[in-house]
Amino acid sequence: MSTRPDDAALPATIERPAGRRRKAPPVVRHEDKRLAILRIAAQLFAQNGYEATSLDMIADQIGMHKATLYHYIKNKEEVLYFCLVKSFENLDEVVEKVKDRSVPTLQRLRYFAQSLAHAQNSDFGRCLVVVGLRPLTTEASLDIRRFQRRLDTTVRDLITEGIAAGDIKPCVPALLSAMLFGMLNWVPQWYQEDGKYSIDEVVETFMTMLIQGIAARPQR
Amino acid sequence: MSTRPDDAALPATIERPAGRRRKAPPVVRHEDKRLAILRIAAQLFAQNGYEATSLDMIADQIGMHKATLYHYIKNKEEVLYFCLVKSFENLDEVVEKVKDRSVPTLQRLRYFAQSLAHAQNSDFGRCLVVVGLRPLTTEASLDIRRFQRRLDTTVRDLITEGIAAGDIKPCVPALLSAMLFGMLNWVPQWYQEDGKYSIDEVVETFMTMLIQGIAARPQR
Repeated sequence: MSTRPDDAALPATIERPAGRRRKAPPVVRHEDKRLAILRIAAQLFAQNGYEATSLDMIADQIGMHKATLYHYIKNKEEVLYFCLVKSFENLDEVVEKVKDRSVPTLQRLRYFAQSLAHAQNSDFGRCLVVVGLRPLTTEASLDIRRFQRRLDTTVRDLITEGIAAGDIKPCVPALLSAMLFGMLNWVPQWYQEDGKYSIDEVVETFMTMLIQGIAARPQR
Repeated sequence: MSTRPDDAALPATIERPAGRRRKAPPVVRHEDKRLAILRIAAQLFAQNGYEATSLDMIADQIGMHKATLYHYIKNKEEVLYFCLVKSFENLDEVVEKVKDRSVPTLQRLRYFAQSLAHAQNSDFGRCLVVVGLRPLTTEASLDIRRFQRRLDTTVRDLITEGIAAGDIKPCVPALLSAMLFGMLNWVPQWYQEDGKYSIDEVVETFMTMLIQGIAARPQR
């Protein structure tokens, strides 16, 4: 999962190449613009906080009139809600893969950590980690909380399975899961894309240290 | 460090026992009330977020008129600033103790983690972890950032010392430090005082798993 805006997320002000033969149908273009709006909103929320970011600022940044913005979104809370939903978008598939018992548990734990870290260090993930769910109404935050619980359950089940398989030393799965999420959740707070390490290197380092601590058998 | 309000932090509405002989001098009582205000503000900031908490709400909660509140504090930003300063209050001593080379490095790392976790899971610490520095002006947040960097440097130096002493496997101290802070910084987001585990138990579990992963020699 890339942390760089993809083509579909070009800011609405940037025209597509003139030479393009087929115009995308209107529905797709609407979705493109909507995604571009969400991505820029996510960046602004993570940068300035939710309260300090206005719809005017989002419209400004995207080079769109605020009245036009309302063709794509209803209000600021809805924007945040969809940014947070997007932060989980690719994790459904990850949760399914983590259940594949043909792969050793510790290898699956590494895979989960890598996938989560990439999701968290995308524009939408940073928005979730930095802003959190507080600005949403209880109802709107329920979906997100449900998915967060699902991620936690996925990790706890994997740890329980690892202990039963003799891969992981006996421990309290809930606490090991909390430790793992803490390590990873904090990364967007300090990680710099132009820094010394890639996300893969950070997670690889974390997981090697962690796994050497929790593995029932010596690693490597 | 207790996470329960101590006597000095009784809400201003709660009268001290009538039988008390000596009245505290006015300066002390002023400081008592100020601390009570800060503690209640920290609780409200952590609970509702900074923007959603008003000075009216703080005055209300403490049972004080808003005009009276201004005898103790200047504005909301100042309240947050002092809450965050308080979150570090007892860590100066910890930083000094961590430098004591007569104690093995891994033992000092455990001690640091325990102390940090207690500070973070106090009213003021939760306020720092949940609200962060964003609402402060750059200038006001400098002191706090300086102390955070000092904590990070303390841990990195300790890890470097541990590697040199043959206690810790060779690793990148900056990444191990980021991993440790992440694990611990996240605790206030999920920890419940009335839950199954004490802060000491949580940190003990975390550190046992971590130390088994990073120790150069088998532990226990």
